[in-house]
Amino acid sequence: MPSEFELIGRYFGDRGPRRRDVVLGIGDDAALLDVPAGQQLVVTMDTLVAAVHFPVATAPRAIGHKALAVNLSDLAAMGATPAWFTLALTMPQADAAWLEAFSDGMFELAERYEMQLVGGDTTRGPLSITIEAHGLVPAGRAIRRSGARAGDRIYVTGTLGDAALGLRALTGECDLDVAERVLLVRRLEYPQPRIAAGIALRDVASAAIDVSDGLAADLGHILDASGVGARIELGRIPVVPSVAGYAGRSGDAGFALTGGDDYELCFTVPEERVALLASRLAGLDGGYHDIGVVEKATGLRCIASNGAGVALGQAGYRHF
Amino acid sequence: MPSEFELIGRYFGDRGPRRRDVVLGIGDDAALLDVPAGQQLVVTMDTLVAAVHFPVATAPRAIGHKALAVNLSDLAAMGATPAWFTLALTMPQADAAWLEAFSDGMFELAERYEMQLVGGDTTRGPLSITIEAHGLVPAGRAIRRSGARAGDRIYVTGTLGDAALGLRALTGECDLDVAERVLLVRRLEYPQPRIAAGIALRDVASAAIDVSDGLAADLGHILDASGVGARIELGRIPVVPSVAGYAGRSGDAGFALTGGDDYELCFTVPEERVALLASRLAGLDGGYHDIGVVEKATGLRCIASNGAGVALGQAGYRHF
Repeated sequence: MPSEFELIGRYFGDRGPRRRDVVLGIGDDAALLDVPAGQQLVVTMDTLVAAVHFPVATAPRAIGHKALAVNLSDLAAMGATPAWFTLALTMPQADAAWLEAFSDGMFELAERYEMQLVGGDTTRGPLSITIEAHGLVPAGRAIRRSGARAGDRIYVTGTLGDAALGLRALTGECDLDVAERVLLVRRLEYPQPRIAAGIALRDVASAAIDVSDGLAADLGHILDASGVGARIELGRIPVVPSVAGYAGRSGDAGFALTGGDDYELCFTVPEERVALLASRLAGLDGGYHDIGVVEKATGLRCIASNGAGVALGQAGYRHF
Repeated sequence: MPSEFELIGRYFGDRGPRRRDVVLGIGDDAALLDVPAGQQLVVTMDTLVAAVHFPVATAPRAIGHKALAVNLSDLAAMGATPAWFTLALTMPQADAAWLEAFSDGMFELAERYEMQLVGGDTTRGPLSITIEAHGLVPAGRAIRRSGARAGDRIYVTGTLGDAALGLRALTGECDLDVAERVLLVRRLEYPQPRIAAGIALRDVASAAIDVSDGLAADLGHILDASGVGARIELGRIPVVPSVAGYAGRSGDAGFALTGGDDYELCFTVPEERVALLASRLAGLDGGYHDIGVVEKATGLRCIASNGAGVALGQAGYRHF
């Protein structure tokens, strides 16, 4: 039977893409990396804790995917191209079947974005995964949260609320038919980071953020950082029919704005670049939608189709 | 009473050195960093889990210090200059007194090395700290594990076994007088990364590693990576009198070679650069010691002063 050390080596030691800019990867005191001239380094770090960020029964393949995906989503929001990542994996014991599925989920995504695992740490303890993702962006072209100006249009990619409803289906808080449930749980467990959209938004978007804590909270971060406010229209928020149906039945009209775990991009674009946006995002899988406008007056106003204001109860998911 | 969010912001949001190469620090989706031309990026990540890597009763100030110090020690072993770090802090609840002491310990060390905290994540869960440290090294001048050659002399900085004996004192496995105990526990809880020595060893050392798992295990990593072996002399291993006394009383002659948590550097130097070494490390706090020689035959041989071989029982601390 292989030792725990050998298991770690087998599933993480020599897997995934090999990049030319990695001078020294896993196996020394630290990794040694070449950042090309003219590029800036973009770094982000996110932790997933069992029973806090995912149900304990989640498939290890999904945990591996999501742990990397949530970090890639942050790179996407900056307009960065993924490059390298490091993994801190804390687990109660080294189980071969678990490690195989977890690492498969993680490296499947790493392959897609040509990311190389260049280091990390495995420790014994309650299950928790911290990943740091490193990306590259041409100097001066990263998209920040702070660039939104009054008059800019506000957009989101894809649809919102899918993952939040998927979680409610998992916890038995709502009934869905099997096909809907499978789709929504897949959105919860296998979020697809919007890397291509983020890169396409360089020099187009005035500000961007990834929607992880719910649109209301995350758009709020853009508004705070930019010193502006916004008006969005509830009827323009892109939702799938099952989410629209749940919002109606439950009386929580703003459900799709507060659910969290969407990993779509929310971004703002000056009027004069709206045509450029259309050409840059033509053919984007899942599309993108104009949901409102940036205004001078601070605060986020959400308007229903009858013109009434919509109260956004819980202002997004907070990890603490 | 401040919210947990406000506490996190107060103790981590706007503290420590501000560096010119940080284009964007905490507060966006990711940090944005400038790597100077001609420098390579050095990254390392280490996790400390409560009750695994430190006793639950450890002072939070010491935990904050050590979580950063163990990462700096890896940068030191590469000959890197510290630059930035990110922090993933998972804790059961946000306690102001705990956060203040933890962050004080961490930033005290960050100040000393002009490191800026540029991002991270705080999550709820069992206490665990993951830090990624980023350093810089002139291109091509990082020190690796793989460069040791037969005939090279082997050195360690400082003294070994102090921290391991400090841990035994804490757990009641050995009796020490109060002054000795205080010193050794301090070595355990406040390891001092050998950054200056690491930088001084560029172009001098043929290989280097930091001693975290015990000299026998860590020197073993150099030997494995370099495809060589070594002979070291037990009588040349630098130890303080209390460690020498404990090794004698307990019958564990190799205690200082297997204890772990030393965070000294072990490195190899070709004969023709030994004089250069002396000038580079002149005045090094704690000094450095020649403990043996690299040989062609693989394996690590430890020789007692009577010429007999010393069996190294437990080959270093293993986290898994």
